[in-house]
Amino acid sequence: MIIILKPNSGDNEIKKVTSSLEGYKVSFHISKGQHTTIIGLVGDISAIDREMIETNPYVERVMTVSEPFKKSNRKFHPENTVISVCQREIGGKHLAIIAGPCSVESEEQIYSIAQSVKQSGAMFLRGGAFKPRTSPYAFQGLEAEGIRLLKLAREKTGLPIVTEIMSPKFVGLFEADVDIIQIGARNMQNFDLLKEVGRTKKPILLKRGLANTIEEWLMSAEYIMAGGNPNVILCERGIRTFETYTRNTLDISAIPVIKKLSHLPVIVDPSHATGASWLVEPLAKAAVAAGADGVIIEVHNNPECALCDGPQSIKPEVFENIMKKLAVYAKAEGREL
Amino acid sequence: MIIILKPNSGDNEIKKVTSSLEGYKVSFHISKGQHTTIIGLVGDISAIDREMIETNPYVERVMTVSEPFKKSNRKFHPENTVISVCQREIGGKHLAIIAGPCSVESEEQIYSIAQSVKQSGAMFLRGGAFKPRTSPYAFQGLEAEGIRLLKLAREKTGLPIVTEIMSPKFVGLFEADVDIIQIGARNMQNFDLLKEVGRTKKPILLKRGLANTIEEWLMSAEYIMAGGNPNVILCERGIRTFETYTRNTLDISAIPVIKKLSHLPVIVDPSHATGASWLVEPLAKAAVAAGADGVIIEVHNNPECALCDGPQSIKPEVFENIMKKLAVYAKAEGREL
Amino acid sequence: MIIILKPNSGDNEIKKVTSSLEGYKVSFHISKGQHTTIIGLVGDISAIDREMIETNPYVERVMTVSEPFKKSNRKFHPENTVISVCQREIGGKHLAIIAGPCSVESEEQIYSIAQSVKQSGAMFLRGGAFKPRTSPYAFQGLEAEGIRLLKLAREKTGLPIVTEIMSPKFVGLFEADVDIIQIGARNMQNFDLLKEVGRTKKPILLKRGLANTIEEWLMSAEYIMAGGNPNVILCERGIRTFETYTRNTLDISAIPVIKKLSHLPVIVDPSHATGASWLVEPLAKAAVAAGADGVIIEVHNNPECALCDGPQSIKPEVFENIMKKLAVYAKAEGREL
Amino acid sequence: MIIILKPNSGDNEIKKVTSSLEGYKVSFHISKGQHTTIIGLVGDISAIDREMIETNPYVERVMTVSEPFKKSNRKFHPENTVISVCQREIGGKHLAIIAGPCSVESEEQIYSIAQSVKQSGAMFLRGGAFKPRTSPYAFQGLEAEGIRLLKLAREKTGLPIVTEIMSPKFVGLFEADVDIIQIGARNMQNFDLLKEVGRTKKPILLKRGLANTIEEWLMSAEYIMAGGNPNVILCERGIRTFETYTRNTLDISAIPVIKKLSHLPVIVDPSHATGASWLVEPLAKAAVAAGADGVIIEVHNNPECALCDGPQSIKPEVFENIMKKLAVYAKAEGREL
Repeated sequence: MIIILKPNSGDNEIKKVTSSLEGYKVSFHISKGQHTTIIGLVGDISAIDREMIETNPYVERVMTVSEPFKKSNRKFHPENTVISVCQREIGGKHLAIIAGPCSVESEEQIYSIAQSVKQSGAMFLRGGAFKPRTSPYAFQGLEAEGIRLLKLAREKTGLPIVTEIMSPKFVGLFEADVDIIQIGARNMQNFDLLKEVGRTKKPILLKRGLANTIEEWLMSAEYIMAGGNPNVILCERGIRTFETYTRNTLDISAIPVIKKLSHLPVIVDPSHATGASWLVEPLAKAAVAAGADGVIIEVHNNPECALCDGPQSIKPEVFENIMKKLAVYAKAEGREL
Repeated sequence: MIIILKPNSGDNEIKKVTSSLEGYKVSFHISKGQHTTIIGLVGDISAIDREMIETNPYVERVMTVSEPFKKSNRKFHPENTVISVCQREIGGKHLAIIAGPCSVESEEQIYSIAQSVKQSGAMFLRGGAFKPRTSPYAFQGLEAEGIRLLKLAREKTGLPIVTEIMSPKFVGLFEADVDIIQIGARNMQNFDLLKEVGRTKKPILLKRGLANTIEEWLMSAEYIMAGGNPNVILCERGIRTFETYTRNTLDISAIPVIKKLSHLPVIVDPSHATGASWLVEPLAKAAVAAGADGVIIEVHNNPECALCDGPQSIKPEVFENIMKKLAVYAKAEGREL
Repeated sequence: MIIILKPNSGDNEIKKVTSSLEGYKVSFHISKGQHTTIIGLVGDISAIDREMIETNPYVERVMTVSEPFKKSNRKFHPENTVISVCQREIGGKHLAIIAGPCSVESEEQIYSIAQSVKQSGAMFLRGGAFKPRTSPYAFQGLEAEGIRLLKLAREKTGLPIVTEIMSPKFVGLFEADVDIIQIGARNMQNFDLLKEVGRTKKPILLKRGLANTIEEWLMSAEYIMAGGNPNVILCERGIRTFETYTRNTLDISAIPVIKKLSHLPVIVDPSHATGASWLVEPLAKAAVAAGADGVIIEVHNNPECALCDGPQSIKPEVFENIMKKLAVYAKAEGREL
Repeated sequence: MIIILKPNSGDNEIKKVTSSLEGYKVSFHISKGQHTTIIGLVGDISAIDREMIETNPYVERVMTVSEPFKKSNRKFHPENTVISVCQREIGGKHLAIIAGPCSVESEEQIYSIAQSVKQSGAMFLRGGAFKPRTSPYAFQGLEAEGIRLLKLAREKTGLPIVTEIMSPKFVGLFEADVDIIQIGARNMQNFDLLKEVGRTKKPILLKRGLANTIEEWLMSAEYIMAGGNPNVILCERGIRTFETYTRNTLDISAIPVIKKLSHLPVIVDPSHATGASWLVEPLAKAAVAAGADGVIIEVHNNPECALCDGPQSIKPEVFENIMKKLAVYAKAEGREL
């Protein structure tokens, strides 16, 4: 941690700042420049609140040098984390392909889609039961009934199921019934929910928030891990920018950046990142080329009648075709579908 | 609602689109241009899902003309909403001044601040009991004990209390003990929480999300109002942009825009918008000049030792000075403190 | 300047970094932490390229402590700069009110508007002769003929004229004929143009770029000042964000921030910041309340027929009304119209 | 074009709006809804200024349906444009690989890099002679001498040269000496410069502005094409967002979007998009996977001593390795290096 003092600070001001930090196990390195004096703090700074120092009247600015995330940090855990889900692995050699409809709509619908994505090679079935919708007047999902239908589809196809949780009160239900619990973009900083799922051991698919930095995203993973659950899968799904042609802007750089900063697996959601079905294929390929550990793709047997997010869903035959192409890219990266 | 067909669409394509909408009480107005054919939908379109139409293979784009928010829309409720809280009004002639520390830290602290902000003219006391923090390792607030201390301060000073809720499981506690329930920026689209507070009749202070549009913000108000609670106070607190000099960018235009689109009261939080105490005064004045119904300001008797958000807190004597200046601006706008 | 070394760097790595900087007049302060080693550079670092150091294989990151702008920096020039233009001052006690149409369209139009804004109290006349338009098919301004008409209006009303330059090849023409040369937002980093106007002594109205930080904006002022022209007036005109309800987002915080960082005058353009005439009044008032040295407002005698930017222009009678209100706010700030 | 009238507009208001458009060759389609009345304009609307209509007091909003770009629009030119440069093609089966240093520094430097990138398979040599720098105190490039050195390197290696123009006054020099003229991100809306290069027949590499939409980017291409020069190559180089870990955010979706909207070739600059050499490889691969027609990569024989942009430059041996990997991805896309 580096403390920059206000211009024309002297020994007196330096002392007032360092004495305010006396209780901590740190040593101070003073650098006096012509215009600027800097105090470097060395030692265990994890308990020091940067903002408290910034209110000191002699302090101009505080810069932090070390990353605030610990358990998710690759520096302290150099090997990749590989997460096991029902005899499948996420973060290992196989790419995790998760596919399914935006919303579970009926037994026939979810079963039919599950079967077809399985045939094309998907390893996991996704489907929304509780749906976050901008409007209170829009379809909110089948809720608990949706979970029941997902379980039926799992029973018939063997595909583990991935679905989004929206409230801490359902953590018990999800823990019992669901294989991967998804935290949606809008809840990435719903800290209460993060703490609750941190108490389980279930794999958590943590989507990046619409306007959250990579560091904040890793701090949200840290919430789950600090609670005792190391099984976090990160999912880049586009950020909000000034560009309105696509619904969001897929931050493709986030893939290699996460791989450098963290040991956690990271996958990409090209469907939500753009909101357009014709962009799923090029972005899924780009994700694999950039080093993603998998993709999550919306597939619907009848996108024109989908109860939500139709425009970004693709048909099973399109999905099959994308899978064939992804296999080539996976191989180029030394991986497999 | 306006449906733009793909280039070179003919009568056949038009018919396929209109026939897919046969069940709805709408009429169609067809405009055939040289390159573009447009179908205008007139009638009750509230039940039609725009995205479903967009998946139609003959459709290029759908544009919506009417605003998706109803109960919060000024078109259907032309007069300003004035919300009563313990014999005080928000949205009327008096500006609502809410002040207090980021976090409740002790009985002495909250009582001392409450007393001094009351003397300077504040009408409401704010203080965080449950704190949303980016890091799981940071101070998370005194929680239920913080609420107890706020109640003590209210008892002694008579100031109604405003504090943030983070989980649906505490709605009962807040309903019983708190005068205005705050929904923080990170929970603006925590739809489950919005629904829960919509079941109460308590005034809700709804902060704008970091990266949420004005329309999405009004849709979140709509969630609360659709649940039966009309008492929503909007709070602009800065949005996330590329500029990093200030913590966020205060969207001052949002004040007059909200006043045009909605009948709900809107206040401004200059402390969180910038993260810097020296910016509180100019932005509080700008907020009043732009037509805000009040401001919420962080005040701490000892900002250097505040357990969180110290840099943006001001001292009671600075607050008193700001209040004197705001009085002049209030008068210029035909209002009072 | 602070150099953070890669984890596990030892004396050998420190030496390799410091020896690469041997030619410079700097001293080094080494801080070795458990995980991180930091080298603080003290002395004259103006000639050291931060990016060169970052390529050193032992370096993780470089942080700069001091601000890169010199001539525009308040630290080295504590008093406000006041710029004289034809017996008027910008940056002093009087607020600078600049008004006029987006484009000069005809002699009658510019003269009529000039007369009416003068009567309402405007001190400067603005009007576009060379117009930056997104589309090559849109009206590009009357060009040199527009300058001629502005001069006629100045002759009749005595108002100094402000107009935008788009190409270095017209610097001579503008130097001879125009009182304040405007650099538009799209040219804020047209460094060639900045250098050219830096060779004149004319006051330069430098608009902030759509997506430029406050620091970059001051660096563009620095280009002009480094060329020998100290007469720079900054103009905040809205930045590009995700919010689409307004054309841009007025960054009201930029006013007090500029006042802290720099001694240069700063004004606000509420017309371009929002693109909506009904937002001009509240934002002009907010600008004055936040400490701006003036405003620039689009006024047109017939906005419905304006050849460009009609929606954001106001009529002369609306302008007169705004001026009356601004007088109250100016007084509250200890200033005058 | 669709005109939405203010609420409660009747026949009288409709007439006032339509009669204001009498001079144009358009027909009107009126749709009266319960709350909203819409006028659809069909015919040749290219000469109608949307903003003029928006100032009509009866009009709430105007929506444009057709795209404002014509010559760059794929609708009117369905086949891909392939641009010939010195017996090489850009936009055809071969991917265009452009490589070289940020700045030309000396004859030895540019020749040595040119030779090594040629051996690795690069088809074009890039190198900055005139450099846009945020600071007036930073190295501004060798200018005309840099062009001379590029020509020497071309003579020896046969590689066509690509370099950035910053001022209209050098168009003649660039036309004579350079093979592809680059317009940098900061000059994307320097309309004067666009017009000048539009008068030549030289291929123009048009970089996307930091905060410009895809539509604005195509409109800037339109400026060049409207001037008579059809040879425009688009270059995505990252946009400015709230994320600060990377210098910019590469908008990978822009590649397939441009391919849909336009017939022009589009390439990607992974070096400037991120500002980090270790991100060049994953992003170059992602670009090819997403359908880009090429990449432009910064290569320096001694990045630690580069006079600018060192951190994002890679060494020749790294470049060679990237080229081998790109060949695999090119093949997967049915293309060649």
